[in-house]
Amino acid sequence: MSLIDELKSALGEAAILTDASAMAPYLADERGLYQGVAACVACPATTAEVATVVRLCRAAGYGVVPQGGNTGYCGGASPDSDQQLLLSLSRLNQIRAIDPVGMTATVEAGVILQNLQDAALAQELFFPLSMGSEGSCQIGGNLATNAGGLAVLKYGTAAEQVLGLEVVLPDGKILNALKPLRKDNTGYKLKSLFLGAEGTLGIITAAVVKLLPAPTEYQTAWLAVDSVAAACQLLPLARKLSGDTVTSFEYISAPSLALVQEYIEGSRPALDQDYPHQLLLELSAPLPAGSLRPLVESLLEDAMEQGLVLDAVLAESDSQRKALWRLRESIPEAEKHAGRSIKHDVCVAISDLPRYMAAAPEKLAAIGAMRPSIYGHIGDGNLHYNILAPPSEDADAFRRLHAAAVSAALHDLAAEMGGSFSAEHGVGKLKRGELAHYSDPVALDLMRTLKTAMDPEGLMNPGKLVDTKTADTSPES
Amino acid sequence: MSLIDELKSALGEAAILTDASAMAPYLADERGLYQGVAACVACPATTAEVATVVRLCRAAGYGVVPQGGNTGYCGGASPDSDQQLLLSLSRLNQIRAIDPVGMTATVEAGVILQNLQDAALAQELFFPLSMGSEGSCQIGGNLATNAGGLAVLKYGTAAEQVLGLEVVLPDGKILNALKPLRKDNTGYKLKSLFLGAEGTLGIITAAVVKLLPAPTEYQTAWLAVDSVAAACQLLPLARKLSGDTVTSFEYISAPSLALVQEYIEGSRPALDQDYPHQLLLELSAPLPAGSLRPLVESLLEDAMEQGLVLDAVLAESDSQRKALWRLRESIPEAEKHAGRSIKHDVCVAISDLPRYMAAAPEKLAAIGAMRPSIYGHIGDGNLHYNILAPPSEDADAFRRLHAAAVSAALHDLAAEMGGSFSAEHGVGKLKRGELAHYSDPVALDLMRTLKTAMDPEGLMNPGKLVDTKTADTSPES
Repeated sequence: MSLIDELKSALGEAAILTDASAMAPYLADERGLYQGVAACVACPATTAEVATVVRLCRAAGYGVVPQGGNTGYCGGASPDSDQQLLLSLSRLNQIRAIDPVGMTATVEAGVILQNLQDAALAQELFFPLSMGSEGSCQIGGNLATNAGGLAVLKYGTAAEQVLGLEVVLPDGKILNALKPLRKDNTGYKLKSLFLGAEGTLGIITAAVVKLLPAPTEYQTAWLAVDSVAAACQLLPLARKLSGDTVTSFEYISAPSLALVQEYIEGSRPALDQDYPHQLLLELSAPLPAGSLRPLVESLLEDAMEQGLVLDAVLAESDSQRKALWRLRESIPEAEKHAGRSIKHDVCVAISDLPRYMAAAPEKLAAIGAMRPSIYGHIGDGNLHYNILAPPSEDADAFRRLHAAAVSAALHDLAAEMGGSFSAEHGVGKLKRGELAHYSDPVALDLMRTLKTAMDPEGLMNPGKLVDTKTADTSPES
Repeated sequence: MSLIDELKSALGEAAILTDASAMAPYLADERGLYQGVAACVACPATTAEVATVVRLCRAAGYGVVPQGGNTGYCGGASPDSDQQLLLSLSRLNQIRAIDPVGMTATVEAGVILQNLQDAALAQELFFPLSMGSEGSCQIGGNLATNAGGLAVLKYGTAAEQVLGLEVVLPDGKILNALKPLRKDNTGYKLKSLFLGAEGTLGIITAAVVKLLPAPTEYQTAWLAVDSVAAACQLLPLARKLSGDTVTSFEYISAPSLALVQEYIEGSRPALDQDYPHQLLLELSAPLPAGSLRPLVESLLEDAMEQGLVLDAVLAESDSQRKALWRLRESIPEAEKHAGRSIKHDVCVAISDLPRYMAAAPEKLAAIGAMRPSIYGHIGDGNLHYNILAPPSEDADAFRRLHAAAVSAALHDLAAEMGGSFSAEHGVGKLKRGELAHYSDPVALDLMRTLKTAMDPEGLMNPGKLVDTKTADTSPES
């Protein structure tokens, strides 16, 4: 019996897609960088069925590529051979439990992030992970890629929300560490192995995550600052003077804002003047209504006196708050309209950001004329230092010509400062070369040791992240 | 040349202790459970010297037992053979840097916890890890055991403070992941492997940890509650009504308090009446002075109206606050005076605590008459459910007779509820049997796979936690 027949017999005909049109949405990746190839798409509905798929694939020597909401930026869920199967977690979409006393939720991998946020809010609780794709990305993918987003500064990345995990291992066994325990010092932190491993060591099928009291007040400000250095000085001051309630601290360069104004209908700048460096600052907390307003006002007053802030506007209503956020969140869409960007996701120490911003233009100028669109989560030291073609040039030709050199320049600069070439987007297929190039050899060696020990056949998400077997079959290499 | 001669030649005579009296303090463990045996004590002063010691030991086939402040409760830093060397991290005691903009500290393993707290405070910053032993325990040990303590509820365990690590691996290579990055999704989370691994996969030599704005106000209350169930209901209410500023939520049973009053000079009960279930609740935050007082008052009013809180006293000064904390923190010392306890460190989901507390007495009664002293961090679901001999019985004889059965009963009960036999104290030598007995076989197998892959010779802290080689040489087995 062929693998596909075995799968159909185990999971039912309807759970195994082999028709090209049914498979198509799973094989196209978010950014259009890769066209996936797979023997079939399997849609198990339970953890046991996931384990069955993994076991059958292993016996047949097929690779397994897990996929959540398919919103990743690095091709991490894109299969590339008919000796691979795409395993969609979408049908594992149950919120198994919300515990209002313990303040935890037990959720399956296929739960859409926004559905978890909403289910928590319905109990006056709060799941703090938040990002542009929250309406379609799934918790399993968030955890497997250790997603970041808009509130990491306060609440940490996806991995930091996790108390327990359920994982199907490469041999098809189920690791049941789905415990809602706040503390458990009984051996190695196995769950951490799978958070950010992009499915290369096993498939996350469920998680217990922490919930928090829901914020009851938001204070959202759009600021102009004199420099990135001033922004970096402002952050610790804002944390201190706000009772550590800063939940977002986002940087927007003038060119990014100009793209939004050019391409996003109805967008209006927040401030009357053009300023090269702007910030979206948000405080939020479950404090009694009105607690944060005086804090943000005195913080801004103080920061203006110190010359850190040049201009500011405070949202006076929820609709104004949403309008400010829309300005910030429309940047990727505006970049698409402008011909798509060469995207970067670098991270350095927050105190190194001014140095990074000062040094990058010269490195880029050595390559050629280009148009930067720089924005990002500078409260985390994380910049999306994106590069577009100058308006006079053809965007696709520019990318083909310069992408490699531009990325190398920006990644080299981050590496020189002890920084990272991938703060929150992960490695996937796209950045495997970077991982091999920039990693400490001792670290890379240890990653390979772990991969070999846990997945000796190299069948879990082959060709992604660190890979010990299938380097040759990866189409981009 | 013998190993000791090689070590002396590499590190200098003074760094290698072979004299029995010089070695003695390193070989006696905190609780007097084990008498350590080792070939010598090595006191390297740098990471490179730690690596040298590991390499020389490996070449000679000697085990390496790392030790920080030697304050652990499970014998995790106690060597047990003259084929082992004790490696003290005490001389790696530099705070290498504090970055007030990035809000991070880079510290060596041998830095005493309180010294880091103080150095942070000197810059109006805050390192939140806090525990009874903070005056002598060291950061390296805190991280290697993933220590818990008094503020985990709000700030997480030791592991959750870490951004970057430097580790000497079993082969003597140095893993340099000492990065002050808030986000870095470039491969497996290697640092997590060493946090809580008790030195069995490598030796942590330095870390970058997060700092926070220092709290500016504390509100500390001693409460009587009707039941543990009421305490568990109070916690989410308190988090919600306090702006999520609850930093400690500690349970103290009447017998624990009675021990303190009996044995600790000058101790006075906080409340006028005896109540079976009492709590120490603390709010703290870097909010403007006076922000928390109305919150704690309205919270207590609300909780009393709901019948969750029966009686309460609020600290009116720093000295009153300290007196309340002293009551709570004197319990272990009082237990010592009363003849030492059979200690436990169980954890269940917070919402399962009432069920645990209801079921335990019957299980214990089946063994014999005994005197419980129950207290702990119930804001984390973590109980120190300690057992003493009845006043009429000899404490040592009681412990010898009942320790195994009592621990099995309390650990079985936690396991039945999906809980943990070691919330924060770790495994060490003391709880290796429990680890093997209570772990999910799939998890245990994966731990062994990791240990074998990373330390094939089994030379890193042999006989601790999960061990693949030296089970036979461990004196307690």
